[in-house]
Amino acid sequence: MINRHVIIGGSAAGPKIASKIRRLDQKADIVIIQKSKSLSMASCGYPYYVGGVFDDPKMLIATPTGVPRNPDFFFKAKGITAYVETEAIAIDREKKLVRIKDLKSGKEQEIPYDKLAITTGANPIKPPIEGIDLEGINTLHSLEDAIELRDMIKDDGTKKKAVVVGGGLIGIETCEALQLAGIENTVVEMLDQVLPFLDWDMAKLVENHIKSKGVEVLTSDGVKKFHGKEGKIVSVELQSGRIIECDMAVVSIGVKPRKKLAEDSGITIGSKGGIQVNRFMQTSDPDVYSAGDCVEVTNLITHEKQLWPMGDAANLQGRVAAQNMVYGNIQEYEGFIGTGICKVFDFTAGSTGLSVKMANREGYENFIKITHAAADKPGFMGAKPIIMKLLADKTTGKFLGLQAVGTGDVAKRLTTAAMALHGRMCIAHLVNLDLPYAPPFSPAIDNFITAIHVLENKWRHYMDGISAVELKEKLDKGEKPFILDARGKDEYEADRLGIGETLIPLGVLRTNLDKLPADKNTEIITYCKISLRGYEAASFIMSEGYQNVKVLEGGIAAWPYPHA
Amino acid sequence: MINRHVIIGGSAAGPKIASKIRRLDQKADIVIIQKSKSLSMASCGYPYYVGGVFDDPKMLIATPTGVPRNPDFFFKAKGITAYVETEAIAIDREKKLVRIKDLKSGKEQEIPYDKLAITTGANPIKPPIEGIDLEGINTLHSLEDAIELRDMIKDDGTKKKAVVVGGGLIGIETCEALQLAGIENTVVEMLDQVLPFLDWDMAKLVENHIKSKGVEVLTSDGVKKFHGKEGKIVSVELQSGRIIECDMAVVSIGVKPRKKLAEDSGITIGSKGGIQVNRFMQTSDPDVYSAGDCVEVTNLITHEKQLWPMGDAANLQGRVAAQNMVYGNIQEYEGFIGTGICKVFDFTAGSTGLSVKMANREGYENFIKITHAAADKPGFMGAKPIIMKLLADKTTGKFLGLQAVGTGDVAKRLTTAAMALHGRMCIAHLVNLDLPYAPPFSPAIDNFITAIHVLENKWRHYMDGISAVELKEKLDKGEKPFILDARGKDEYEADRLGIGETLIPLGVLRTNLDKLPADKNTEIITYCKISLRGYEAASFIMSEGYQNVKVLEGGIAAWPYPHA
Repeated sequence: MINRHVIIGGSAAGPKIASKIRRLDQKADIVIIQKSKSLSMASCGYPYYVGGVFDDPKMLIATPTGVPRNPDFFFKAKGITAYVETEAIAIDREKKLVRIKDLKSGKEQEIPYDKLAITTGANPIKPPIEGIDLEGINTLHSLEDAIELRDMIKDDGTKKKAVVVGGGLIGIETCEALQLAGIENTVVEMLDQVLPFLDWDMAKLVENHIKSKGVEVLTSDGVKKFHGKEGKIVSVELQSGRIIECDMAVVSIGVKPRKKLAEDSGITIGSKGGIQVNRFMQTSDPDVYSAGDCVEVTNLITHEKQLWPMGDAANLQGRVAAQNMVYGNIQEYEGFIGTGICKVFDFTAGSTGLSVKMANREGYENFIKITHAAADKPGFMGAKPIIMKLLADKTTGKFLGLQAVGTGDVAKRLTTAAMALHGRMCIAHLVNLDLPYAPPFSPAIDNFITAIHVLENKWRHYMDGISAVELKEKLDKGEKPFILDARGKDEYEADRLGIGETLIPLGVLRTNLDKLPADKNTEIITYCKISLRGYEAASFIMSEGYQNVKVLEGGIAAWPYPHA
Repeated sequence: MINRHVIIGGSAAGPKIASKIRRLDQKADIVIIQKSKSLSMASCGYPYYVGGVFDDPKMLIATPTGVPRNPDFFFKAKGITAYVETEAIAIDREKKLVRIKDLKSGKEQEIPYDKLAITTGANPIKPPIEGIDLEGINTLHSLEDAIELRDMIKDDGTKKKAVVVGGGLIGIETCEALQLAGIENTVVEMLDQVLPFLDWDMAKLVENHIKSKGVEVLTSDGVKKFHGKEGKIVSVELQSGRIIECDMAVVSIGVKPRKKLAEDSGITIGSKGGIQVNRFMQTSDPDVYSAGDCVEVTNLITHEKQLWPMGDAANLQGRVAAQNMVYGNIQEYEGFIGTGICKVFDFTAGSTGLSVKMANREGYENFIKITHAAADKPGFMGAKPIIMKLLADKTTGKFLGLQAVGTGDVAKRLTTAAMALHGRMCIAHLVNLDLPYAPPFSPAIDNFITAIHVLENKWRHYMDGISAVELKEKLDKGEKPFILDARGKDEYEADRLGIGETLIPLGVLRTNLDKLPADKNTEIITYCKISLRGYEAASFIMSEGYQNVKVLEGGIAAWPYPHA
């Protein structure tokens, strides 16, 4: 018996399903229906094409050996029929037919299926703002968008200016791409921070870095209107009243599942607006599977269904769906843990598991957290800083999440944390990890392990910590803790916080006890560059009978506010 | 009550113990006894100092802010007394006294302890070879060794030549350092491969890379005699008879625990020759703890006690010992999983958990393995190859180990695998990992996950694989399988294996069935550059009724033998 598999959608999950089915069943009929002209696009690569990391957009649809993944390639190399510029307009689930329309000729036909996969992806959200359809406004969602945007920013001797609407992952990658291509640009974000998967303090460190590269970042502001002239954008009017003149705008405020086809055919849609699937990536119709940006999947930390429109998840889900379409439900996609990363200039920023913001939103109350800063290698190997924020369950020590930003190798530490979450590991498992150490790769105790040590120190009450945000709130309320900078005099003179601190270098603290407040109940807050010396100072001061001593977590490295 | 902690040994574990005790107990008396002149040396950094990655040897003993960790620093910043150039010569465990000797004055004294830590480290193994004490033979074990070696290779206008005896981790790091410093060098290794933590085939890929940089590598050969002139080395005579003229030799054939002091005092030594400790890092004497290169610890994969002289382990063990010395046995060091990494020219090579060699040695019989090659990023982001070899239990799918080599980001993939081992994860847990994906960091499906997919494909019998070594054995025995290269003609013309293969590009395979052998029982072996097209070709050929089709695992990228 020859099986006929029809796959609606040819961007990421779709081609993965088709290719995997072919490897498992050489006799199957496999058909991909793709609305756009291109197949199997590496859409996460669009910002890098726009930014000039590479020049040939064909690389976005090519195999590792440079063969374009077009219908001819799919047919010859894989025996897969791909219809491009063809839209699936209806599914008759009873008769197991898909009605498709050739978008060039307008011709329609019905094709039969045994198993169907819906991998229709997501649409960029286009807010109903006046002027949104002006020429020069791009969503960087399709390959055509990427080519158009790169064409717009081409150097023609004039100085150009762009507005990026939305400070999320794609917005931030786009702002970097534009800046690298020589386009002056402003990022406008409605929330009070960029990169909403990070807590405010971590996002602020990224924002400071972006601004240091000459990009203007406006948070807590939105677009009121796009102004045009002869149908082309000329400026963006913000809700704050400010008008920014520009030659182009990129709108990247998120995506929403393309679910209409599934919904119209009576397939169940979940509460978050995506196609509902079970752990076998099977929809409410047992003969219909779905994967990619159009589905809802389980967050393995919160156990909630969620939209998770990520390229890696789409591919993994596609591999699972394909096996189940061929063999019956033999493989599970359990879900995701919420790992995201982006490069922005010299920084990498990412998160896995819970942030404090997410923990609060999801009702977690019993957790401890720590902010930690350290170099990612020994000093003699060219160390670069990473600032981390970690969460764990206060009672069990179960690890809950990591955020990390900085110029060091953040990706490896996020990977470590992601694996700790997948392995449901606790502080007790993580304090003595045997990770690959040699000086070119990490300090003798890796940053992630050190961060876990500091978290454990707080958990075991070896120290008490205070975050930058908490200290700032105290100061803003007019409280006057005794603040001790434990660094050296030269460091202090080169750069200091200017929050009323007293400099007592750690090396002379033991002989300068008289500089501490006489009242042993005074709140004392200690720090240094990364708060290791701050921790040692706090331990010493506590042993002198002071009752209320805290370490400023992450020290100056994690301080998101301006310095003196 | 004031506690007095004495720590014998001041290199890695010792200073960690002292510093951690201070943070936990500000009133304790803490004394470090250190035989050498330096304290707290980053000994893993010696090859990088020798190779000129940095020029100031003080960086090897400095804090991140550049303060040298000398006795003055330990006293002022931490209130720790450190005696350097002082040897502990006897322990009276009954009276709780350590007899120490000032190596400059020769003066001896006894000092009391409440808790004692023995962190005496390891000695480099110096084989009893004639001439081993000649001037110019260095073991690169102490800071003084590193300074001496760098001095020896200083550019004085003459062309110098070195022999590196031992092709392990330090030997290979040293050969790179010497080569980068402009010293022609030959590595001599008794075994039939360098880097003994790798399987032969993986090590051979590294060896090929080292040779491509102009280093001569001689395996299966040893040193018979060092020849000297006026007390200085002039040549090395090998067991094969060859004589290599040289100006210096670096001998790095391993280390052995410095256990005499402990042994003489009646503390139990384990079966592997290291000080025996329980999971609290406590020796057979409850008041004596030990950590670092001198102890035996548990391999968490094999559950055997083992020597594991690694800088990261020493630091972690020290942190555990310190807490237990202060608070009683509150924290465990469970053991290590066997993670090692080294950089060698453009390559990174490492291993975690079991190699096939180790698995065989340890009696594992029920495992599956796979060799896998892939790029570490999308092609448009500057992909670099990584070759991996993975093991898992054949029945349960429990992950057992990874070896990885190549110019790509190997450290991150080893970290992923190390965490999978720490989390006791199985193939079913690893197929859908949510790792940090964005194009600057990895392909949409990370290399490690893809490797797990291939391992699963083999496990689920979607494909049958054959390793390069297994195929080579077949060919050497005179077997004549039909070997199919599924790459493009241009790739084939640029580089080919020359093992009797037939070129049938995947894209034309479906229309060239007549080129396959007529007998459907003929053994067919397929490959391409990394054997993804090889896998697709094999799937297709099997569907045509061929009964014995295998994929050459890792393809050309993992082929350790010469090409045509």
